[in-house]
Amino acid sequence: MKPVRLAILGLGTVGGGALKLLQENATEIRRRTGREIQITYVGTRRPRPDLDLDPSIKQSSDLLDIVRQPDVDVVVEVMGGIHPAYEIIMEAIKHGKQVVTANKALLAEHGNELFKAADDHHVQIAYEAAVAGGIPIIKVIREGLAANKIEWLAGIINGTGNFILTEMREKGRAFADVLKEAQELGYAEADPTFDVEGIDAAHKLTILASCAFGIPLQFDKVYTEGISKITAQDVAYAEDLGYRIKHLGIARRSAKGIELRVHPTLIPEEKLIANVNGVKNAVLVQSNAVGSTLYYGAGAGAGPTASAVVADVIDIVRDIIYTEDGAGTIPQLAFEALADTPILTSEEMTTGYYIRLNAEDQTGVLADVTTILSRAGIGIDAIMQQPRLKDLIPIVILTDPVVESKMNDALSQIQALPAIHGEIIRIRLELLEN
Amino acid sequence: MKPVRLAILGLGTVGGGALKLLQENATEIRRRTGREIQITYVGTRRPRPDLDLDPSIKQSSDLLDIVRQPDVDVVVEVMGGIHPAYEIIMEAIKHGKQVVTANKALLAEHGNELFKAADDHHVQIAYEAAVAGGIPIIKVIREGLAANKIEWLAGIINGTGNFILTEMREKGRAFADVLKEAQELGYAEADPTFDVEGIDAAHKLTILASCAFGIPLQFDKVYTEGISKITAQDVAYAEDLGYRIKHLGIARRSAKGIELRVHPTLIPEEKLIANVNGVKNAVLVQSNAVGSTLYYGAGAGAGPTASAVVADVIDIVRDIIYTEDGAGTIPQLAFEALADTPILTSEEMTTGYYIRLNAEDQTGVLADVTTILSRAGIGIDAIMQQPRLKDLIPIVILTDPVVESKMNDALSQIQALPAIHGEIIRIRLELLEN
Repeated sequence: MKPVRLAILGLGTVGGGALKLLQENATEIRRRTGREIQITYVGTRRPRPDLDLDPSIKQSSDLLDIVRQPDVDVVVEVMGGIHPAYEIIMEAIKHGKQVVTANKALLAEHGNELFKAADDHHVQIAYEAAVAGGIPIIKVIREGLAANKIEWLAGIINGTGNFILTEMREKGRAFADVLKEAQELGYAEADPTFDVEGIDAAHKLTILASCAFGIPLQFDKVYTEGISKITAQDVAYAEDLGYRIKHLGIARRSAKGIELRVHPTLIPEEKLIANVNGVKNAVLVQSNAVGSTLYYGAGAGAGPTASAVVADVIDIVRDIIYTEDGAGTIPQLAFEALADTPILTSEEMTTGYYIRLNAEDQTGVLADVTTILSRAGIGIDAIMQQPRLKDLIPIVILTDPVVESKMNDALSQIQALPAIHGEIIRIRLELLEN
Repeated sequence: MKPVRLAILGLGTVGGGALKLLQENATEIRRRTGREIQITYVGTRRPRPDLDLDPSIKQSSDLLDIVRQPDVDVVVEVMGGIHPAYEIIMEAIKHGKQVVTANKALLAEHGNELFKAADDHHVQIAYEAAVAGGIPIIKVIREGLAANKIEWLAGIINGTGNFILTEMREKGRAFADVLKEAQELGYAEADPTFDVEGIDAAHKLTILASCAFGIPLQFDKVYTEGISKITAQDVAYAEDLGYRIKHLGIARRSAKGIELRVHPTLIPEEKLIANVNGVKNAVLVQSNAVGSTLYYGAGAGAGPTASAVVADVIDIVRDIIYTEDGAGTIPQLAFEALADTPILTSEEMTTGYYIRLNAEDQTGVLADVTTILSRAGIGIDAIMQQPRLKDLIPIVILTDPVVESKMNDALSQIQALPAIHGEIIRIRLELLEN
């Protein structure tokens, strides 16, 4: 079977990330699609003789020429900017290429023309990466929630802004001070206007609203207000009243029409979205059948954005397979080839533990217990002695992750200690870290 | 264009919900697909002459006969139970019908045979509704995260169990006591074993793990532990240590194999998933490119489950359109027909407000301000007077939602009061309720 051939245009953070991801996860992606994805071209606006690419990849700075080549099925536009991205995508469409783009500004401002051209030429422009990075929110709204009438959505869709507001709240810092740090950390651009004045969020909201309500892209009608006037004083007062200030993009249907707005917003602190902190993104969607659903994750960065770009490529590959082979678009259990990876028994599983013992108030029992754990190589993360209950002292121990068979052995020994009464309680513990 | 014709088998909570949703959202769904979805049959195991169905819908209790009919393209199996659902789906597959099912037990225990039969007959079995109700988690894992190597996932995938643990923590109640209430509220079955002993969660975890790792369904290898032994004492001790106890389904890849386990788990209270309360579901997925993403929403109920069932139907309709017309599977902006709904100006938008004024410490200023708001018909939700700052007293007012033009008028009047100094700060406020 023929491989599906990609041209990647732009080799900055996102393009470089996509290239790396396609190589690193090639085996897993091949298992999912059953078809090879081959990068035939990499295009950069300026010649980049320094790039150490695989010799099978052709390299060029004539981007218009790349998208006309017969050995390109899919054009991945990750250059950013309106021009020449617009002209290059138009040229790709005219040559019957499928297009994947992460370019939110281009779509929000010129998407209507681009999508019309794509329809006319029977190709797709896929754009999952344009909104909320690695969160598959476009797929969720276009497909996952397709049975619903969407009533409104509210999203933290600019990580820089959320980082600034989080720091202001948690540390009582001033806007300008945090912005400077964000620039040093590389979260904010040297010219931070797009992020802090809400223009980037307005681009993304424009796209989300069109998918949610089925309306043309209308970036010029988004009411946009940034966070630069938010003071530490207002952040603190809001907190006193039980609210947090988040920079939200909101799209809402009302009887009179549709509201499209980006502005700082007080929201009740107990809402899950109020607890989305730092550079993370989240989108809350209110729909008439499913009710509230929320989607959370990284909104920017090489890995997350590449995840969305390559997911779009995989969708296109699956459509190509469907067209050519008539097979179902997506394998039933997500992979073309299932693996016979062994499933571990519970004795072989690794987790942390919460252990509760009831001990007589006897010198030495804690030493005996910790010695048994230590000899078994089980790390202790916390020990807490609780007030006496019915002549016995509850002792709670949290452990580091350990293979269950080791824990079983240690607990048998502890259970056998004369000072331990009743059954030892154990509950597993997970930090849910990477 | 021919309508796509459905048979709905089972008219309980989910089947009734799907029927209602297809009718209620018919216009919106038609806008999304451009194709009519027509219900040709409703099947119930026992004759139901009491049902008041549209006369165009044929009604029968011979389910095997329904799935053989030529005027059925898609069979929606929402009866539940292993038999006769298995035999009916097999018969539908043999007759070339596409299948949509919400039946997690059937798939977890017999999915391997069913999917093989579907592949052999070139049809699909769609099953979004089988896991986490209205959250489109199957689509996210099969498609949205397809570029990633998924490392682990952890889900609150049984609403009854999460309701019980939430009540135990928030109110210090005992397990048996909350279970009884859950049964009275209709969250838990008369025989609660499937929910509280983790069998329902194990069914769902089996399906999630297969999609995440590309392994056959292996329900019999899931380590399953329920919540019936969790005591209020352990819930409280865990909280003292900064943890919450959640009933999680966890699937993790390790060097030795795959862990599949359902058990009560201590997790750090600051994690977003630790704050998923009541009957809500959430799935946290750790992947190598995008990192952590989380998906939250209602895991059960007529509307949410029907949302997933009908989304699967729409996917199939879009595949049929793609096959017949060669058009893109999904319209670029999610809808075949875009609407010209007006976009409101900011003056026409409705939100709550946080208002901060700096007032001289003068009798009557609060009365003047509240009188202006009251005359404008603006409801006040909270007023907070802050400690004096530089001779002025900051006054914070939270208002009910109001059209912005009214607020603009009221604020002009307030700004003109002689006791008000400096610019009035206003930040919008949203409760993010339905």
